[in-house]
Amino acid sequence: MSELRWDPLIDSWVVIAESRGRRPADFITERKRIVTTVCPFCYGHEDKTPAEVYALRPDASRPNQPGWRVRVIPNKYPMLRIEGQLDARGEGLYDVMNGVGAHEVIIETPDHDRHPADLHATELAQVFRAFRSRLIDLRRDKRFRHIVIYKNHGLEAGATIPHTHSQLLALPILPPHLRTALRASRDYFRRKERCLMCDLLAQELHDGRRLVRVDDAYAVFAPFASRHPFSLRIVPRRHSHDFALLTDQAMITLGETMHDIMGRLRAVLRDPPFNLVLHNAPSALPRPGRSDCWGSLSCDYHWYFELTPKITDPAGFEGGTGFFINPTPPEDAARYLREAVV
Amino acid sequence: MSELRWDPLIDSWVVIAESRGRRPADFITERKRIVTTVCPFCYGHEDKTPAEVYALRPDASRPNQPGWRVRVIPNKYPMLRIEGQLDARGEGLYDVMNGVGAHEVIIETPDHDRHPADLHATELAQVFRAFRSRLIDLRRDKRFRHIVIYKNHGLEAGATIPHTHSQLLALPILPPHLRTALRASRDYFRRKERCLMCDLLAQELHDGRRLVRVDDAYAVFAPFASRHPFSLRIVPRRHSHDFALLTDQAMITLGETMHDIMGRLRAVLRDPPFNLVLHNAPSALPRPGRSDCWGSLSCDYHWYFELTPKITDPAGFEGGTGFFINPTPPEDAARYLREAVV
Repeated sequence: MSELRWDPLIDSWVVIAESRGRRPADFITERKRIVTTVCPFCYGHEDKTPAEVYALRPDASRPNQPGWRVRVIPNKYPMLRIEGQLDARGEGLYDVMNGVGAHEVIIETPDHDRHPADLHATELAQVFRAFRSRLIDLRRDKRFRHIVIYKNHGLEAGATIPHTHSQLLALPILPPHLRTALRASRDYFRRKERCLMCDLLAQELHDGRRLVRVDDAYAVFAPFASRHPFSLRIVPRRHSHDFALLTDQAMITLGETMHDIMGRLRAVLRDPPFNLVLHNAPSALPRPGRSDCWGSLSCDYHWYFELTPKITDPAGFEGGTGFFINPTPPEDAARYLREAVV
Repeated sequence: MSELRWDPLIDSWVVIAESRGRRPADFITERKRIVTTVCPFCYGHEDKTPAEVYALRPDASRPNQPGWRVRVIPNKYPMLRIEGQLDARGEGLYDVMNGVGAHEVIIETPDHDRHPADLHATELAQVFRAFRSRLIDLRRDKRFRHIVIYKNHGLEAGATIPHTHSQLLALPILPPHLRTALRASRDYFRRKERCLMCDLLAQELHDGRRLVRVDDAYAVFAPFASRHPFSLRIVPRRHSHDFALLTDQAMITLGETMHDIMGRLRAVLRDPPFNLVLHNAPSALPRPGRSDCWGSLSCDYHWYFELTPKITDPAGFEGGTGFFINPTPPEDAARYLREAVV
């Protein structure tokens, strides 16, 4: 029988429609390929992008030249612009501010044809170091309240350039889902003096049915109330609210987990398009009098990645209501991924 | 310059990315067509569906036979099932209940080839009467907290059968967006003793830039912080929390508005796929001790329809964060629709 399940972190009910239960093969369709003529993310095309704001250059090569391993550039077509003041103001009952923010691209490898699942743990760790560096740098800008780092893989998931990359958006507001999760984490901590995610993790480790992978440092599981089939959370086992506190060594361990999980997903769903989102504590001090103020860096929050293959297309009422139907029980998704031969 | 805008009803910030501002032509692509061999919604195929729960039969024809003008049936592949008890229970930190609910299909016309924009006001009024009848009937079932009525038009918007129809889902919980809107409406009313939507409407009527159409009974406007391009709210000008309180005459007036708006959308975006969602007050009495309890039928809520063409595919971080980027300023969308020749 199908179930309604409630996720305490996102404070939301989801239908797990077991009667529609789908196997991986039901989600495998022909993938669209992105065709590009000249790739702006390849060696020798550094002048086709805005000047880099970060680069890992083990050979000490000069900026905006070949030789980098990871390169971060402002997005050429930014959704938010770095220049200017917020100029927050009212317009009758509405609030409005200028579209100020940062929108950057993290080019994860110079190799145009590398699949993200083929990046080694040490290479992924280099990418994570770029994330950390940009988080720390952009937090100095007091106009920004939160920094979202995300990756779109495949055309259906929103990647318009095939050369593997992530993106970063520094926002002057808190996104709604983060606000909900911060509130849930804070309320839980006040009642129990324990972290909500730490307790969720303990339950998942004890239960085991939704676990895909676990080592000393990270656990990967399908959320009990997954809104999308084969969606996964990648969670540090030791409490931390902030990805930017990771050491270089912890980044290599995270790279091992991420490499393994991306490989499993590719094997089970035959290279699905996917989105990866870093859910991290907000980065800035509170702005007085707004409901998105959290008073601190929200130490009661617990950071994680969410990995969601883009294999279904939510129906209209899901967007309209925020209420999701997931055709695949997360226990089944976890089992397929756990048993995958990579 | 692009803007961040806040919508008090959904308590959410949205980027209106004016620099990416798109004209209707940018959204017009070839529409996928749905091919069916035998349509279960046509005259003579009444036995291919579950037995009807409502039908408008001006000729007094017998149930489950031809002769109907509007016919409501249980969905043959329901997302939630009508049988059984909720059996709400905890599972560690999680909550779970059985997937109990109602999932029905409202077949809007016997004519397989009628486009929804070609239904006359009186025909649409007959569809609305079916909505009202089902709302009133299903509210008697105390297992249900809320009833969502929605329409998917076109394959990309989730319609797997081309014969025009709407759907109804009776849910044992409140969807997240409704909870947010109920809270916002209640808080506003407590402070001001006025309805939030009534005040929003007054501002929109006075401003005029986002208005598409207005008559004595209904106003149609593009929300100030639209999450999707060309999204519209269809709002009754006289305060009411409940669609089911509409009179037959008011349904004909609503039919006139809806007919006009669907025609404008079809003209401007060349028959886009779309979703239409009825946002109505919850239907049931409170369940003690849950955060989705509202104590009453929520008279401070103001019902409306939201019409959203499915012409963009939200990127990964939008699903992950609940934070949306809209490439078309609602003032532009409203102008195109206002000036459309239908």
